[in-house]
Amino acid sequence: MRLRNKPWAKPLIEANPQFITTSPQDYRGRWNKRFGNNAPLHIEIGMGKGQFIIEMAQKYPEWNFIGIEIQTSVAAVVLKKQLALQLDNLQLICANGSGISEYFEDGEAATIYLNFSDPWPKKRQAKRRLTYPTFLKQYQEVLKKDGHLEFKTDNQKLFEYSLKSMNNFGMIFDNISLDLHKSEEAIDNVMTEYEKKFSQRGQVIYKLAAHF
Amino acid sequence: MRLRNKPWAKPLIEANPQFITTSPQDYRGRWNKRFGNNAPLHIEIGMGKGQFIIEMAQKYPEWNFIGIEIQTSVAAVVLKKQLALQLDNLQLICANGSGISEYFEDGEAATIYLNFSDPWPKKRQAKRRLTYPTFLKQYQEVLKKDGHLEFKTDNQKLFEYSLKSMNNFGMIFDNISLDLHKSEEAIDNVMTEYEKKFSQRGQVIYKLAAHF
Repeated sequence: MRLRNKPWAKPLIEANPQFITTSPQDYRGRWNKRFGNNAPLHIEIGMGKGQFIIEMAQKYPEWNFIGIEIQTSVAAVVLKKQLALQLDNLQLICANGSGISEYFEDGEAATIYLNFSDPWPKKRQAKRRLTYPTFLKQYQEVLKKDGHLEFKTDNQKLFEYSLKSMNNFGMIFDNISLDLHKSEEAIDNVMTEYEKKFSQRGQVIYKLAAHF
Repeated sequence: MRLRNKPWAKPLIEANPQFITTSPQDYRGRWNKRFGNNAPLHIEIGMGKGQFIIEMAQKYPEWNFIGIEIQTSVAAVVLKKQLALQLDNLQLICANGSGISEYFEDGEAATIYLNFSDPWPKKRQAKRRLTYPTFLKQYQEVLKKDGHLEFKTDNQKLFEYSLKSMNNFGMIFDNISLDLHKSEEAIDNVMTEYEKKFSQRGQVIYKLAAHF
């Protein structure tokens, strides 16, 4: 997701280190301390404007949530919402999601969410897709043994690629939906901004839950 | 597939043992002899009226094909077509597809095709689905080491189930299409009767190719 540059974004982030960090490596292995409890850690890579991670944090107060976003202007939009909501179980990271094994210790996370990630449709861009093997390897490290990955997209080609990539990596599928909003899972589904918009246009949403 | 009982079906089958057998176990390990050559063996389980297997046999004369169908009346319809065409590389089996490891020796087949198999939608019927683990085990036995399985369906729930079942069994995915007729693979795709009818109505066709 891209937004126009917001001059207030960087100062706002710098003024609120209690909710957001641009150097997540400083908390590696110590996120529980930052939250002040030992609740399971749920991470969204590429949180966009944060609708999903905020709603999840509100819906599951017994879990901790971390939203990662690389774009300063976008992360600042989420921070604004968090400043209004003051959710104890939500922390934000403004940094590149591709380095998550530098931000989290082995086995530190319970769940990783990938929602409507950039499809990088060209073949030569495949290694940038968040379900490319180099990323899966990091998720495997960061997730605890019974942890799992949840992946949603409306992009057919990215979903085909990801099913194959995760299968070939040796991941075990727990649940697959080829039309999430018409499935039994829809009841508990927390939507992203993008998901809401696209599903209203009749676009099919795909979902895969899997573990290592 | 079910057809009205045809009184001529059984006598026609019995009169043409050169093209069709009701006791395929007699040829176990000796299908190459029946064909009179060592061409790779391609098997369709549940051939229906035979449009797919016949067109495949015509398109790939360098391969041998075997179509299996449990319904006598349906198998007889395919036999009639074969009596007109006299394809050297096509043999038919009228027997239960669930016993294929009794009909083929370990490693005897190059490819197995499952096309628009019965979805058996109820949970208690899961064990009848042709992608249930007990069937996958038989395919694993019958297929040679570099052999593979090709599966097509228009049934979303069956495809979701099968992706999970094959992944959980340890199969390795080679190719996935969530809209076969709009994919690059469509060019080479040989359609079944059912596939032609349903795709004309705008129904999405799913395809998975995988190996053990």
